[in-house]
Amino acid sequence: MSIKFHSKDIISAKQFTREDLDMIFEIAARMEPIARGDEESRLLRSKYLATLFFESSTRTRFSFEIAMLRLGGQIINTSHVAFSSITKGESLHDTVKVVGNFVDIIAIRHPLVGSALTAAKATERPVINAGDGPGEHPTQALLDLFTILKEKKRIDGLKIAMAGDLKFGRTIHSLAQLLAHFDVELVFISPEILRAPEGLLAHLREKGVSFRETKDIEDGICDFDVLYDTRIQEERFTDLKEFEKVKNCYTITKELVGRGKEGICIMHPLPRLQEISVEVDDLPNAAYFRQTFYGVPIRMALLALLLGKA
Amino acid sequence: MSIKFHSKDIISAKQFTREDLDMIFEIAARMEPIARGDEESRLLRSKYLATLFFESSTRTRFSFEIAMLRLGGQIINTSHVAFSSITKGESLHDTVKVVGNFVDIIAIRHPLVGSALTAAKATERPVINAGDGPGEHPTQALLDLFTILKEKKRIDGLKIAMAGDLKFGRTIHSLAQLLAHFDVELVFISPEILRAPEGLLAHLREKGVSFRETKDIEDGICDFDVLYDTRIQEERFTDLKEFEKVKNCYTITKELVGRGKEGICIMHPLPRLQEISVEVDDLPNAAYFRQTFYGVPIRMALLALLLGKA
Amino acid sequence: MSIKFHSKDIISAKQFTREDLDMIFEIAARMEPIARGDEESRLLRSKYLATLFFESSTRTRFSFEIAMLRLGGQIINTSHVAFSSITKGESLHDTVKVVGNFVDIIAIRHPLVGSALTAAKATERPVINAGDGPGEHPTQALLDLFTILKEKKRIDGLKIAMAGDLKFGRTIHSLAQLLAHFDVELVFISPEILRAPEGLLAHLREKGVSFRETKDIEDGICDFDVLYDTRIQEERFTDLKEFEKVKNCYTITKELVGRGKEGICIMHPLPRLQEISVEVDDLPNAAYFRQTFYGVPIRMALLALLLGKA
Repeated sequence: MSIKFHSKDIISAKQFTREDLDMIFEIAARMEPIARGDEESRLLRSKYLATLFFESSTRTRFSFEIAMLRLGGQIINTSHVAFSSITKGESLHDTVKVVGNFVDIIAIRHPLVGSALTAAKATERPVINAGDGPGEHPTQALLDLFTILKEKKRIDGLKIAMAGDLKFGRTIHSLAQLLAHFDVELVFISPEILRAPEGLLAHLREKGVSFRETKDIEDGICDFDVLYDTRIQEERFTDLKEFEKVKNCYTITKELVGRGKEGICIMHPLPRLQEISVEVDDLPNAAYFRQTFYGVPIRMALLALLLGKA
Repeated sequence: MSIKFHSKDIISAKQFTREDLDMIFEIAARMEPIARGDEESRLLRSKYLATLFFESSTRTRFSFEIAMLRLGGQIINTSHVAFSSITKGESLHDTVKVVGNFVDIIAIRHPLVGSALTAAKATERPVINAGDGPGEHPTQALLDLFTILKEKKRIDGLKIAMAGDLKFGRTIHSLAQLLAHFDVELVFISPEILRAPEGLLAHLREKGVSFRETKDIEDGICDFDVLYDTRIQEERFTDLKEFEKVKNCYTITKELVGRGKEGICIMHPLPRLQEISVEVDDLPNAAYFRQTFYGVPIRMALLALLLGKA
Repeated sequence: MSIKFHSKDIISAKQFTREDLDMIFEIAARMEPIARGDEESRLLRSKYLATLFFESSTRTRFSFEIAMLRLGGQIINTSHVAFSSITKGESLHDTVKVVGNFVDIIAIRHPLVGSALTAAKATERPVINAGDGPGEHPTQALLDLFTILKEKKRIDGLKIAMAGDLKFGRTIHSLAQLLAHFDVELVFISPEILRAPEGLLAHLREKGVSFRETKDIEDGICDFDVLYDTRIQEERFTDLKEFEKVKNCYTITKELVGRGKEGICIMHPLPRLQEISVEVDDLPNAAYFRQTFYGVPIRMALLALLLGKA
């Protein structure tokens, strides 16, 4: 059964049922013309969002803020790493409880796992997790899945490959969990030291999701409907030599895409460095910039749902 | 006689007469449903507030911004410690004069005493002092007093205790000054080295305000209608040993509140650290989170008054 | 022939024809009452501006933002030196392409020459250069010229002196280039080591603009209609001794202005340090604060033009 969203929180990709996803995507699809500026909306008129970003993430913050504004709502924001009261030792609980007295809804980004849940418990206002460090970033997972739906017109029946840092890549873990609600075939592509965690694989087995692992990005590329690439993050490594070995293990080139299935959809959560060659940008397969756009209707849908206006 | 607020500045708690306070609180009370989001307002439509925060204070900045937005106004803001032109050596006067050419009203926070007055002199636009270092923070004093009025339904006749750092605590000084307009009895509770300054006490004597000093927070707690607690701030001490001696001299616990007068109202300007136990939060006596909320209708009232729209 | 502005970019002062300038100034003049708050406008309703400031410039950012807001548009902004994704190594191209998917128009400030052009190429949305390091700052040049027009009621026929750092002063170079479209006489006043670059002088010769150079600010002051002063910037010097020699070479005092032509208009891009005495501020000749105000109607005109709403 679908959770009732009004006044609830969005903390984890795990909280969504298949029905929830279908509903969110249906609403997001209706939001699309507003997100593009083709239609005007005052749906969230006199509603106020606070973006509490305890670490910088300009892209994510902008996406939430423009979603709120284009629906006629307003924002108060902070993009400071160091909150003034936090530096005086104030608890996150107190900060959020105060801000919850000012606004109708809060989007929070914080470097610590579990911080979004702490925030949600501090206030009766709905709280959206906009990334809690190595924890979760559920709106990213939703926009990733919505991008697949928009690009391929379906999710069921697709063969979806995920490449790069599958060990630490939080977007990969959340997306795989959402995909487990669908009838898909997954391929995990990574060097040995960056394999997907056993916990995730066990979860997929339990859910009956068909998947395989490989080290070779070319292994089966002619079958992939979607290739979701991720950055290998230097900051996750304690041994620089280990990083140097794997940092450029996969580079998606025009030539590689050419050998893929026709219509193969190339995705990436951005920022991308060397792992996707800029020459790929011009191919119709390159979906990663459209992907960031789809974050806007997804966040519009969530804001509207949580505020009881969907 | 009441000052005429339209196009005037709010610089100091000292500037208000009893009539001013009554008028501000009457307007703030009417603003309350708008601050809660129960009513919509376009009162300050096409009015623009600049929040010039030369030091971070997320809570205060948010409070001003949401007050402006919920009244239909708009904001431009900066939360940067280092202003670009200031770092090039520009005078505060020039910065404020320029910004005064852009907006209708300015709220300024600055680490130096007297900066708000300098700002007010630089522009014909109304300027609100949102804290000038160890100087004043008059909107905090107003919201503190308004909280007492809301919680106890009156101010005259109350016995109000103030505890903690009475020497450096700017909120204490300003609130005591406002309370001198009323028929109240004050109790100052502090360790010897953090006693209220003689100047403040002399002022109270001159105004005929009844007060006494004590070191013991339990001394008379069964008589207090309001207990206003403050943080003892490490940064005010030059000798760390002195700080260590007094830092935990008062901790308000559930047990302590239980021994107080029925309905005793516990206030704190926040952020709070150890000086109020979190277990107190759930008591109906804990007014400190409601107190931060009351900053919104107070700032709404001031914005409306200064812009001639009250 | 005039460029068509709709969906175009504003990158350089060089891109404007005389016709463009006339048109921009005509629209800016109509925007003036809105900029002053005497008239309300919803012209840019449901349009969204992103201010991408990779270096702080509060004055310029505020000017763009208030221009957008007073026309009924909305803003998302960042004033951070360090963008989150940029610090992860993302290219400016990718950042701008993403933001271009969120908003209708972008104003960018960046420390590197050519960055605004890179930004403009990354997105189909119009991009306005709000300063690309030692490169250009075309909206400053436009507001400078507009100020002359407003203060002197004409541009043709004026004798305009520019003093201070003519070598590195980007505002001087751009303004001189715009003035070359008019029938003016220019006087360049600087110490030897800060003379205007030969390239600029050659351009003026080619355009048939009458000019002369001098080291003495009093040389001909009784003939100047406009005296545009600039700050000598310490950070441009590699040899501190050289800076010390010239830093106070010109100080505009009340006495100096008194010896000038009646109605001489004193301009400065601000921030000013010692080079204009504060006693000058009260003279009707002091146009530099009005000058910053004129940035608002100029930016309103550009926003409206680029968004096809002029």
